[in-house]
Amino acid sequence: MRILLDVMGGDLPPYELVKGGVSAGHNLDVDILFSGEQNAIRSALLKLHEHEGDRFSILPSSQTIAMTEPPVQAVRKKKDSSLVNGLVALKEHSVDAFVSPGNTGAVVAGAVFIVGRMAGIPRPGIAAMIPTVSGREIVVIDVGANVDCAPEHLLHFALMGATYARQVIGTAQPKIGLLNIGTERAKGNKVVHRVFDLLNNGPLPFAGNVEGHHLLTERPVDVVVCDGFIGNVFLKTLEGGISAVSNIIRNGVNKNLRGKLGALMLQPVFSELRKKLAYNRSGGAPLLGVNGSIVIAHGRSDAMAIESAIDVAHRAVKSHLNEIMAKGMSGWDENGS
Amino acid sequence: MRILLDVMGGDLPPYELVKGGVSAGHNLDVDILFSGEQNAIRSALLKLHEHEGDRFSILPSSQTIAMTEPPVQAVRKKKDSSLVNGLVALKEHSVDAFVSPGNTGAVVAGAVFIVGRMAGIPRPGIAAMIPTVSGREIVVIDVGANVDCAPEHLLHFALMGATYARQVIGTAQPKIGLLNIGTERAKGNKVVHRVFDLLNNGPLPFAGNVEGHHLLTERPVDVVVCDGFIGNVFLKTLEGGISAVSNIIRNGVNKNLRGKLGALMLQPVFSELRKKLAYNRSGGAPLLGVNGSIVIAHGRSDAMAIESAIDVAHRAVKSHLNEIMAKGMSGWDENGS
Repeated sequence: MRILLDVMGGDLPPYELVKGGVSAGHNLDVDILFSGEQNAIRSALLKLHEHEGDRFSILPSSQTIAMTEPPVQAVRKKKDSSLVNGLVALKEHSVDAFVSPGNTGAVVAGAVFIVGRMAGIPRPGIAAMIPTVSGREIVVIDVGANVDCAPEHLLHFALMGATYARQVIGTAQPKIGLLNIGTERAKGNKVVHRVFDLLNNGPLPFAGNVEGHHLLTERPVDVVVCDGFIGNVFLKTLEGGISAVSNIIRNGVNKNLRGKLGALMLQPVFSELRKKLAYNRSGGAPLLGVNGSIVIAHGRSDAMAIESAIDVAHRAVKSHLNEIMAKGMSGWDENGS
Repeated sequence: MRILLDVMGGDLPPYELVKGGVSAGHNLDVDILFSGEQNAIRSALLKLHEHEGDRFSILPSSQTIAMTEPPVQAVRKKKDSSLVNGLVALKEHSVDAFVSPGNTGAVVAGAVFIVGRMAGIPRPGIAAMIPTVSGREIVVIDVGANVDCAPEHLLHFALMGATYARQVIGTAQPKIGLLNIGTERAKGNKVVHRVFDLLNNGPLPFAGNVEGHHLLTERPVDVVVCDGFIGNVFLKTLEGGISAVSNIIRNGVNKNLRGKLGALMLQPVFSELRKKLAYNRSGGAPLLGVNGSIVIAHGRSDAMAIESAIDVAHRAVKSHLNEIMAKGMSGWDENGS
């Protein structure tokens, strides 16, 4: 298996990302094609005592799409960017998967233009894996690919999220929840009301509405469905709440000796906390509904996060996610486009 | 000053809420009119060694609106409920403010039908005070009164939130932020784009888009504006993230002696954490844009939370919030109705 890693668009320098790619290459036994500035990648490989070859190779590019660039224009104009080159390589099957910590909008736009949408899916969705207190993840889809969704799009997200949970995570009968502001059926806005009816009459095990305050502790469902605007607010707010708590604890323990000693004693608890709820370190988010395996990593991804994102891509390819999803979706009409 | 407390619609029994009201009455030097089942309130007062009089009096009612009842129908049908009776008392100026931990939708619907909207405000909004790491709150409006908002409604939320921050919190020039999924102007959905333009060309100090992951740690603004669906998801998700962390820490420290000792040493840190980020204990959320001071307390409010909600109402009345807001809004057209 060969996975492409875009090392240019993230917040950290290419060296850090190459390091993650090298580690993933060895640990997962996959070949990595680094997409980006040739000299930067070469010197990173050298520094890591690796040489170019089958395991680690380079797809050179002269341009980089920045985090803040308008996605559609950037993809159209920067034809020799690491992101566009990488997606072309995926389209042409010279790699099995594509991983990037770059501009999310540009990855989504590029994926739609270059790699193409899956038949029956007018709107691809980004699925995030949310760690919970129980240790088992929840799939939340969409967390930012689409900001103005029709109800039918959310039904597609549910179908794709359920397929992901079944094929990649191994949940036999994934339960679906609809992110809402109350558990009663009447709660929510117009879009959510219509989605509730679609899911309620649909083929998937639908558990009704779910709310943000009990998802992580109770884990009532396996897949949470929402509009990409809501999903993105949800994801970032969760990160914000958790980092606020960490922040207060960190400041508190560093205040005096008592705090430092207490923190030392609670070291196993804090390390479990980090392991369980480390949003910036955990995995990457697969873009579902396009004709290729694409994983979007956090912009601030370090080597460990990149390795984890490559692992997500690796598992998707190994489980034949896309072939199975395409088969499952072909029965659906493009009635939501 | 006389404040009405609806003791029937919360999750906890009337005794707990009466206890909060009694404590607030003494500590804030305000009179409390308890709205609800007469016998239940009487026996609660007896148990608390208080007697009926000017300080603590009873507005008897025979009906209760439950948390799960459809708001509009409930308010229309249950004319002798503690909630409706309380709002009528506010409308008739027999009390200066109304506090309820009951069905939020019913409070909003009842407020609009009975107390009436402020001129120029087609949609009242619920303002939540969000504690931050710095210790200074952020006002987030709307957190659930309106789930399908036009852009103009969010402009009104901004104006009301700013007035609240100025009059009640004492921030001279409150900075406004728009809750979005990125800080760049192009980010977000159609409604948010239009709101950005309205705020950018409006009279208030507008700091642009803000995101959920940095609000609590960086506190970039004083007031955050959003649609009530988004705001409610934001609030509950924050609560969820924080309670997930607490949950993991609690389980971890109770596992063995080392954990228990560590927790004992970090007791000052944890108590600061609770004080700073205790969402279920902190205050109540004022409903802004109606002709009366109304504060919605958390459904799970205990005595301490009720006292805190009464304090919010007390501060609003003392600062003449509603008179000042009505004056400020009268210059605005009802163009968003």
